Amino acid sequence: MNNKILITGTVAFDEIETPNGRSGKIIGGAGTYIGLASSLMSNNLALVSIIGEDFPEDEIKFLNDRGINTEMIEKVSGGKTFYWKGKYHQNMINRDTITTELNVLEKFNPVLNEDFSSSEIILLGNLHPAVQNAVINQSTNPNRFIIMDTMNFWMDNTLSELLLVIKKVNLIIINYEEAQQLTGEKNIFSAGEKILKMGPQKVIIKKGEHGSIYLDEKNKYMLPAYPIVNLIDPTGAGDSFAGGIAGFLGTKSEVGFNEIKEAMLYGTLTASFCVEDFGIEGLRKIDRQMLKKRLEIFKSYLT
Amino acid sequence: MNNKILITGTVAFDEIETPNGRSGKIIGGAGTYIGLASSLMSNNLALVSIIGEDFPEDEIKFLNDRGINTEMIEKVSGGKTFYWKGKYHQNMINRDTITTELNVLEKFNPVLNEDFSSSEIILLGNLHPAVQNAVINQSTNPNRFIIMDTMNFWMDNTLSELLLVIKKVNLIIINYEEAQQLTGEKNIFSAGEKILKMGPQKVIIKKGEHGSIYLDEKNKYMLPAYPIVNLIDPTGAGDSFAGGIAGFLGTKSEVGFNEIKEAMLYGTLTASFCVEDFGIEGLRKIDRQMLKKRLEIFKSYLT
Repeated sequence: MNNKILITGTVAFDEIETPNGRSGKIIGGAGTYIGLASSLMSNNLALVSIIGEDFPEDEIKFLNDRGINTEMIEKVSGGKTFYWKGKYHQNMINRDTITTELNVLEKFNPVLNEDFSSSEIILLGNLHPAVQNAVINQSTNPNRFIIMDTMNFWMDNTLSELLLVIKKVNLIIINYEEAQQLTGEKNIFSAGEKILKMGPQKVIIKKGEHGSIYLDEKNKYMLPAYPIVNLIDPTGAGDSFAGGIAGFLGTKSEVGFNEIKEAMLYGTLTASFCVEDFGIEGLRKIDRQMLKKRLEIFKSYLT
Repeated sequence: MNNKILITGTVAFDEIETPNGRSGKIIGGAGTYIGLASSLMSNNLALVSIIGEDFPEDEIKFLNDRGINTEMIEKVSGGKTFYWKGKYHQNMINRDTITTELNVLEKFNPVLNEDFSSSEIILLGNLHPAVQNAVINQSTNPNRFIIMDTMNFWMDNTLSELLLVIKKVNLIIINYEEAQQLTGEKNIFSAGEKILKMGPQKVIIKKGEHGSIYLDEKNKYMLPAYPIVNLIDPTGAGDSFAGGIAGFLGTKSEVGFNEIKEAMLYGTLTASFCVEDFGIEGLRKIDRQMLKKRLEIFKSYLT
């Protein structure tokens, strides 16, 4: 199969400080991470996003080289690209935002072209629910499979809009802490079951270095994370996880329990490569061959 | 198979406070938890320990009813049983010791009887390494399989003695944080590999609610924890895990990779029952049937 995958998410500048060092101003954004992770399995994918005039052309070219269609990345003349600066705590999990400059993102109004509005798979990266909704509303494929990511910020500030999007998606991928916040349930499967009642048929709850779980009405599944030897920068791990899942599903003719389980392996691994370097460098330097090799190792750990 | 299992560990009084409530003065001790967990699979096991005159006879009888031989539990006339009082933090992981009264434990000098000195499996519960060593030295079975547990306290205070015991065992079961402390390695498998070089052929590293990993020279394995719905009291979880492992191995004619993997499932589940009530109550109220049922559920989550 060679399904079309439509991804929406930020394409941005990041500046990251971790106990391991400082990144300087680098390329980031959920859309970038998702696209790069997906591109390791699929090659019929497009990114809907917005950038400023300051975004380097050669980075767009790099995305193209990875097979990512960037025609729907709007470049705003005279505009500045979304910028985020953050600093991780010693535990490499918690982080403080030092600066957020929305810039062109404030006026992001995604417009799908005809080709990708019929995509079989839609991945809504972490964005304002209104933007996610705008993408759903332009989808013309009645059999599309919609995956969404979100974060606590939208629960705190735009909950009712968020719930409307959650209602429409097929699969939600969400952090454990955020699932707890959204549902008030402490137990991971209880939280998942409450989310199923909000609309999605499938739920994946992420526990970072402790793996992830999946559930639908009939099935439950638990997957450990790949044991990272050298964690450099956790930025983009969740996006890479979602991207790996979408990229794998893009190669399948249906999305059943078996496909989801296999997709979670891939997502876990794309995330593992991501965090082994600053920003997108971890994803930049891998190829399908390296991914396959790590997949074999990972599978041997699980059986 | 019906291997003899020799367990050493404390039989004690505990008083526990968690965010869920207070236990009052109850029965505890690593040996008690290990024995009860093991007894769910094996029925040829004995406990080497020491108690005071204040320890209730009916609790010894309860252990006997579970098939645990208590002839090597020394009862010190006029002595007082080991007592521990602790309080868990809100996260139900960290805890503060409020009181420790060693009492009769200060003079614990384990003496094995002829029957159990030939045990096929020896489980050294968390105790002073000198006591663990005294048990090893009385073992007369050259093909015994020795499992040990320990804790950071012994690393801080009796490291050289501890290392001598570690050198002699076949399997060490250790917390992730303690494995990091013992080896200086942050990555879980790197820590495990360093421990393998200290002597044991097999290492299990526990991550509490996040599961456990196993490694030997050839194999690696990762197992999530069973998702507890109602965590009441984490006391004894690690002991119950080790006890479940020993109890399962007691039914096998050899201890290979497959047996260890299956044993970890059992250990995970005996620990899961343990933490669903205060003290040993979680283990008291389950039987083999309930364990089997949860095993089926757990296995369905993993495949």
